[in-house]
Amino acid sequence: MSSNCALILAAGEGTRMKSSKPKVLAEVLFTPMIDLIIRAAKEGGVDNICVVTGHQSEIVEEHLGGKYRTVKQEKRLGTGHAVMQAKEFIKEHLHENILILTGDCPLMDSATVKAAYEAHVTHRNAVTVISAKVDNPFGYGRIIRAKDGKFKRIAEEKEATQAEKIINEVNSGAYWFSCSVLLDALEGIVAMHDKKKLPNVEYYLTDAIEVIIDKGLTAMAYEADSPNVVLGVNDRIQLMEVNEIARKEVLFKNMLNGVSIPSMDGVVISPDAKIGRDTVILPGTIVKGTTVIGENCTIGPYSIVEDSVIEDGVTLNNVHCYSSTIRKNAKIGPYVRIRPNCDIGEGVKAGNFVEFKNTKIGSHTSVAHLTYIGDADFGSNINVGCGCATANYNGKEKFRTKVDDNAFLGCSTYLVAPVNVGKNCYTAAGSVITEDVPDNSLAIARSRQVVKKNWIIKKKPYKWQK
Amino acid sequence: MSSNCALILAAGEGTRMKSSKPKVLAEVLFTPMIDLIIRAAKEGGVDNICVVTGHQSEIVEEHLGGKYRTVKQEKRLGTGHAVMQAKEFIKEHLHENILILTGDCPLMDSATVKAAYEAHVTHRNAVTVISAKVDNPFGYGRIIRAKDGKFKRIAEEKEATQAEKIINEVNSGAYWFSCSVLLDALEGIVAMHDKKKLPNVEYYLTDAIEVIIDKGLTAMAYEADSPNVVLGVNDRIQLMEVNEIARKEVLFKNMLNGVSIPSMDGVVISPDAKIGRDTVILPGTIVKGTTVIGENCTIGPYSIVEDSVIEDGVTLNNVHCYSSTIRKNAKIGPYVRIRPNCDIGEGVKAGNFVEFKNTKIGSHTSVAHLTYIGDADFGSNINVGCGCATANYNGKEKFRTKVDDNAFLGCSTYLVAPVNVGKNCYTAAGSVITEDVPDNSLAIARSRQVVKKNWIIKKKPYKWQK
Amino acid sequence: MSSNCALILAAGEGTRMKSSKPKVLAEVLFTPMIDLIIRAAKEGGVDNICVVTGHQSEIVEEHLGGKYRTVKQEKRLGTGHAVMQAKEFIKEHLHENILILTGDCPLMDSATVKAAYEAHVTHRNAVTVISAKVDNPFGYGRIIRAKDGKFKRIAEEKEATQAEKIINEVNSGAYWFSCSVLLDALEGIVAMHDKKKLPNVEYYLTDAIEVIIDKGLTAMAYEADSPNVVLGVNDRIQLMEVNEIARKEVLFKNMLNGVSIPSMDGVVISPDAKIGRDTVILPGTIVKGTTVIGENCTIGPYSIVEDSVIEDGVTLNNVHCYSSTIRKNAKIGPYVRIRPNCDIGEGVKAGNFVEFKNTKIGSHTSVAHLTYIGDADFGSNINVGCGCATANYNGKEKFRTKVDDNAFLGCSTYLVAPVNVGKNCYTAAGSVITEDVPDNSLAIARSRQVVKKNWIIKKKPYKWQK
Repeated sequence: MSSNCALILAAGEGTRMKSSKPKVLAEVLFTPMIDLIIRAAKEGGVDNICVVTGHQSEIVEEHLGGKYRTVKQEKRLGTGHAVMQAKEFIKEHLHENILILTGDCPLMDSATVKAAYEAHVTHRNAVTVISAKVDNPFGYGRIIRAKDGKFKRIAEEKEATQAEKIINEVNSGAYWFSCSVLLDALEGIVAMHDKKKLPNVEYYLTDAIEVIIDKGLTAMAYEADSPNVVLGVNDRIQLMEVNEIARKEVLFKNMLNGVSIPSMDGVVISPDAKIGRDTVILPGTIVKGTTVIGENCTIGPYSIVEDSVIEDGVTLNNVHCYSSTIRKNAKIGPYVRIRPNCDIGEGVKAGNFVEFKNTKIGSHTSVAHLTYIGDADFGSNINVGCGCATANYNGKEKFRTKVDDNAFLGCSTYLVAPVNVGKNCYTAAGSVITEDVPDNSLAIARSRQVVKKNWIIKKKPYKWQK
Repeated sequence: MSSNCALILAAGEGTRMKSSKPKVLAEVLFTPMIDLIIRAAKEGGVDNICVVTGHQSEIVEEHLGGKYRTVKQEKRLGTGHAVMQAKEFIKEHLHENILILTGDCPLMDSATVKAAYEAHVTHRNAVTVISAKVDNPFGYGRIIRAKDGKFKRIAEEKEATQAEKIINEVNSGAYWFSCSVLLDALEGIVAMHDKKKLPNVEYYLTDAIEVIIDKGLTAMAYEADSPNVVLGVNDRIQLMEVNEIARKEVLFKNMLNGVSIPSMDGVVISPDAKIGRDTVILPGTIVKGTTVIGENCTIGPYSIVEDSVIEDGVTLNNVHCYSSTIRKNAKIGPYVRIRPNCDIGEGVKAGNFVEFKNTKIGSHTSVAHLTYIGDADFGSNINVGCGCATANYNGKEKFRTKVDDNAFLGCSTYLVAPVNVGKNCYTAAGSVITEDVPDNSLAIARSRQVVKKNWIIKKKPYKWQK
Repeated sequence: MSSNCALILAAGEGTRMKSSKPKVLAEVLFTPMIDLIIRAAKEGGVDNICVVTGHQSEIVEEHLGGKYRTVKQEKRLGTGHAVMQAKEFIKEHLHENILILTGDCPLMDSATVKAAYEAHVTHRNAVTVISAKVDNPFGYGRIIRAKDGKFKRIAEEKEATQAEKIINEVNSGAYWFSCSVLLDALEGIVAMHDKKKLPNVEYYLTDAIEVIIDKGLTAMAYEADSPNVVLGVNDRIQLMEVNEIARKEVLFKNMLNGVSIPSMDGVVISPDAKIGRDTVILPGTIVKGTTVIGENCTIGPYSIVEDSVIEDGVTLNNVHCYSSTIRKNAKIGPYVRIRPNCDIGEGVKAGNFVEFKNTKIGSHTSVAHLTYIGDADFGSNINVGCGCATANYNGKEKFRTKVDDNAFLGCSTYLVAPVNVGKNCYTAAGSVITEDVPDNSLAIARSRQVVKKNWIIKKKPYKWQK
């Protein structure tokens, strides 16, 4: 794609969102809308991006983190006025084309951006309006075409005739402009505003199209495949609807790729996740970020997997897993939390009420119940009894624990880090291990049992005894 | 609103519910239908309420707990007959108007009740029928109007002509009557029944309207805004449908108020809950009772919050929380249960597999994993290690535990109540604390570790060893 | 029903499933499609079943486990060709009728099979096509009838005229044939194929119908009640849709039987489960296998119950329960896992983060929190403190633990099996019990507490201390 640029309009207040945050940071599939728009532009082939901020510009700029140029629209005087703020940016790209996107239409996609660009350059358009056909066009600018199908103009809701109102091809608010034409047209918008003697000082970008057509330049409307590209988010019901459309689109794509999702209830999958064939995703499972899941896994119900690698044949039943790797055929759950930086070995079984953190667990080790292992390196074929834990923190620092292959940790073994348990070792139930245990040894740290006979009869400690 | 009264018809058996309980106790959004109806009447401005019970009247009366007058309809001989049972009640309010509601139409709302009352008194109606337009009028009584729109009569399904059957304005079964007119009309119903020589002894309240119109008095149909007011619950599919309508209505209301609900799957919010702006409610979250949630919280996925106060900035991920207060910026979950009467301080972190009961936790205390704290007062900045618990019950009585600020409880510390741990104290991992620990002290209660070298080689305790 | 047989076509590859498994093993409500089809045939009254395998025949045959006869279709040359492979089977049943079902239409049901058979024998048909009326007939073979309603022929999508294309009665691909007629017709298909000079060597079973009609024999189309019987599964979106239809059908059936399901989100109930009146199933609950649930239970939210018996009045809140019995009025959850072969007694309370395995718990025993009981026999009225466990495994063998009635296990009691705790016994908090405790005794196995005063001031172990 030849050189070009994009302008993203992200100045709006979004009053109906009833938010203390800028509207463009509202999330769709856990991603702020502005990021989705920027991605559509970038994956659509645009390198230079400028964002027009306005309402709470400092928050938007902080979010962008200096990665994109910004200009501020001090007063919100319409989309045309927003574009005017970026005059310098447009001038710098005078011989290019510019993509204009609105920051609150999060379902605009890169394929549409690219295809519209193709149409734009192929037909040497001065401007290409991205349009779409929708079920209910109310409120949108209608695309008015001549009998031969050629784009004529946009009729806004309030100025549309009855005949125009039933037209269901509408303006998405996204455009490709020739930069030089756009610059000229911005002047024209002001002149047109003055001529029309409009009551409010508001400049609309759609007027630029009128200006361009008046000059006899080529304007075209490119109809996108999906009606969703026009969907704007103005309140949180619309935000939910857009989330639901985006959610189902990703789920359908995964199903067609060979992933079984018997019910979509509560299932959310990131568009960046990759999931292998014959894997089953059960209800209530949320897959976030750049997670990669292999084939023949069963994920869910009610699991969260974020930025993790899950190899083939893994079961995650009611598991929360963050930034970790789970190797082949591991069976995890229910009620297990895997915190960042874990590497859980092949064939590991981790049962209920178990937590791992910053830990490596070797293959075929079993951690069946009520156990916490943090900051630790566990070998293979270890059996961890019920109610064990690493005591990795002493109030000041965190230390690591090491347990070697084939060890057997009796129930309620507490390993006070830093400490090493050698190969084949055995710890007695109820032991607090504070010193290293050499290979092949038994470690025991508990008191002998004492029985006081008939103590109950003398003491009667129960309320239900007479 | 001038003085008036209401009669709620709650005698029906509801055979198709296949229940051993009275139908009017079936729940919509976790609230018995009869309570929703009573609330619509009360919030609609009615003070004196009488409930007509019948089938399993003792259970309904027990549920009402003596708060409302009741009359019993011994035999179920129709809605007109049901109203006749309340003659004494109507007589006592002779110069008032009476609202009649059916106990199995749970979506009748106070705004409709009020607006219909306004119409009733403004037009000095003898009776005002509450109607609504529905998509499918089959089975309902149709509202027949004259050409000028004036209400003429109600045509029941079986007596409606083909032309009448396509009318989609229907009778909700709710009415405002002048009490004196109603009393007269009840006599008229009986006469009409006898005149019509109906085969069954059943008296219909709709006949009262015919009687009133025959007398030349003013009858009017007030059309409600929502079609849902007419929805009756006769089986559990309808109960589910009504629940879903009510559920979505509350969710939409919250979204418009600034609450983000990216997917509604499994989300149920009580109509009495209050949720602040920019709070996100994730799938599977149930908010019950009079819960108040602040701004910028993240609640869910898969949390239950009932009758609790959640301050701003709180995270509740997979948490069950009942009748408690969670203060600012606390991060709780996943897999945490907070039982009644807890006060969890600002900035507290409570991690996985943790339970609190009847306990106060000071600010910035951390309870990361596998711990139970019950009947306790914990100060601020305490670090509770993994696998700790308060032993608050001795078989006879429950006692409290107190831990002061800045304490560090080592892993697997058990506090046997009543016991106090002072400021800055430290308990060694694996200690059972049975006596008070003064400020700044270390408490330790465990055996020294003993290592038996090469024990494994001698004993061969593992099945996988040769 | 007189003697008859069935042939199930299960040879297809199902490329669009993108699976490494045969399509007929894809699951609907957790049951492979082939099993659902076999069940429809068997419950429809058919005893002798033959399955035509093809793609990955060995996996299908392994799944069938030798319970049904199979023939292999080496090359996939159409449905007619598939049936030809079973010639021997058909010959053996020469004087019977044969039901032909396709393995990827999982919603074909036994009632339809039976009713079609009734029509087939009553009208002495040579063939009876099972049809259904659908909303969108595109892609299906249309049922062409004469003006008098008599079945004439099937028009496939590509050969259908415009007028035929709008016909919405379609072929399900399921048929009843007279075996002898079918055998003859199979010859006819080949002849017809040769006559038509079709480019590919593919033989269609629908051509058999043409052959039969050409011979002047009686062919009939039996219209099924439900459009779902025609739904085929060719990709995983269709698999999801069929799952959702099947899921809701079971939920509606349960609701009509008196089960409350206020929201269907995430609720999946096995068609083989039985649930009593007034039981409430909350969101996210999965009931699998042949589970039986009593009356007045509350199951969910977010529970899994498989192959278990749940008696009346039980609460299972966020519980996973497999192959176990839970007796009357037990209150279990949240966050409890009951593994196979448990018997949980009447009125038992089991609280959060508790696991049972292969264990009997007597009535009214309380296991409130953070406890694992495995391979054990617990009596009645026992109080198990927080953080207890049975140590049932020593690395080589598993042993049982026995605790008798009225015992009180202090917090963090570990019972090292094999071990017995007698009646009314008491164990001190933090004790590891390795030897039997006689009735009425106190067992204690822990160190005395030592306090080191001002240790904190000397050692300064905390990072937040100066």
